[in-house]
Amino acid sequence: MKIGIIGLGLIGGSLGLDLRQRGYQVFGVSRSSQTCEIAKERGVVDEGSVDLAILKETELIYIATPISAIAPTLEKLLPYLAPETIVTDVGSVKEEIVRTCSELWPNFVGGHPMAGNIQQGIEAAQLNLFAQAPYVITPIKTTPIAAQEKVGAIASSLNSKVYYCTPENHDQAVAWISHLPVMISANLIASCIQETDSEVLELAQKIASSGFRDTSRVGGGNVELGVMMARYNRSSLLSCLKQYRANLEQLSDYLETGNWSEITKILQETQQSRPNFTS
Amino acid sequence: MKIGIIGLGLIGGSLGLDLRQRGYQVFGVSRSSQTCEIAKERGVVDEGSVDLAILKETELIYIATPISAIAPTLEKLLPYLAPETIVTDVGSVKEEIVRTCSELWPNFVGGHPMAGNIQQGIEAAQLNLFAQAPYVITPIKTTPIAAQEKVGAIASSLNSKVYYCTPENHDQAVAWISHLPVMISANLIASCIQETDSEVLELAQKIASSGFRDTSRVGGGNVELGVMMARYNRSSLLSCLKQYRANLEQLSDYLETGNWSEITKILQETQQSRPNFTS
Repeated sequence: MKIGIIGLGLIGGSLGLDLRQRGYQVFGVSRSSQTCEIAKERGVVDEGSVDLAILKETELIYIATPISAIAPTLEKLLPYLAPETIVTDVGSVKEEIVRTCSELWPNFVGGHPMAGNIQQGIEAAQLNLFAQAPYVITPIKTTPIAAQEKVGAIASSLNSKVYYCTPENHDQAVAWISHLPVMISANLIASCIQETDSEVLELAQKIASSGFRDTSRVGGGNVELGVMMARYNRSSLLSCLKQYRANLEQLSDYLETGNWSEITKILQETQQSRPNFTS
Repeated sequence: MKIGIIGLGLIGGSLGLDLRQRGYQVFGVSRSSQTCEIAKERGVVDEGSVDLAILKETELIYIATPISAIAPTLEKLLPYLAPETIVTDVGSVKEEIVRTCSELWPNFVGGHPMAGNIQQGIEAAQLNLFAQAPYVITPIKTTPIAAQEKVGAIASSLNSKVYYCTPENHDQAVAWISHLPVMISANLIASCIQETDSEVLELAQKIASSGFRDTSRVGGGNVELGVMMARYNRSSLLSCLKQYRANLEQLSDYLETGNWSEITKILQETQQSRPNFTS
């Protein structure tokens, strides 16, 4: 089976490595001919090109570009698609993308392999990046069953944990566990550096340890990705932020009034609930 | 030199192991005779007792009890202290403790070895727990120089990174890098579990990965410690929370109005600033 991948970064490149290992013939497209060369050398693709025409005989195509380029890429791809070709994407936000892309191409299946790495680009591509990681598939009413099943079967063959849900549920869930954490984590760093007493700021920087390191990690990460998340998942993120801010106001009130029993209750509840997300 | 340690948990126990290895004779006091036995067996102390009288010939005493017990412990200790005995503590909040304890005993030096572990108690005590970790010493105007230097010299011998500052600056700095992170992290978990759509909540729990794990870690930790921090560092924590909430409101406004350039600026700034705290 011939598979296409558009966008040969960490995700697209790692998909290529996995898929070739599983016997698929992989055709890769990148805007950069140098990336195509590296992809061939590294065994990410069988054939690489800057021209979408290379994909015209593929049965399944992954669009692995940044979020903002997914729909525009599909539009440019349309002339090369056979009627039965399935197109899927790897974007971390789904509602808008799935709606737009399904209108452009009925055989479109939204997907979100939730794997990552601090490194980016083709050089960071690695085998088994998706193993044991969630891979969320987000069909809508019009999505052909066969296409969903195909994308799901390949995700399973990568040893991903495959979940199906609506694009809306996906976006709300990732707002809670991924996009809200980025915002509150970034806001922690942004607030700390506003400390006006330079001695306190300097001391804080020196004594910050694992607690600060962990809590601030995702807020000090990839800027473009953070902005994209905010931009494409704005309404879900706003609803999470609203809830979060109301709770933080409540917590501050408890602190202000010395309501230690309520603060104890909250911390007991969070201690008990966290394993439901992490185990 | 004879050294006393009151409270043989993770911190007190680990101090005992380190100090004995460096040739000090260590006398330990615990409320539990069983803990005293374990401490002797594990080589944490030379002598252990439930009775403070065992400390009457020691030159330096560490109070390694929970925060709320530090001043009451010092009060009970007073009858056994020789005039030149130095008393220090290991509490994670300093202003109130140092003020109260310095009034009780002029030769008191506030200290905060910033090492920890998920495990607690004497069984978790380990050698070199304090190596490479910050050890903040918080003298006030009346603290004798010789006493500060003694506590600092021993902290250095544990290979800690020793810093000196006022109790107020310490408390403000730890509010930023330790206590505020606990509150915003706990508030993340508390908010997520309020999701009313059970399908979304279940999906969120399944797909949460390293980003959520790291951001929620300190908010799902030790409840008693979290409440103590809040209680004893209330005013600094409240000032940090006020700033944090104002910034989060601003960030929400930018998101609401689609001001991506301001969000980009914030994320660029946090990305650039984080290494000042973590490297």
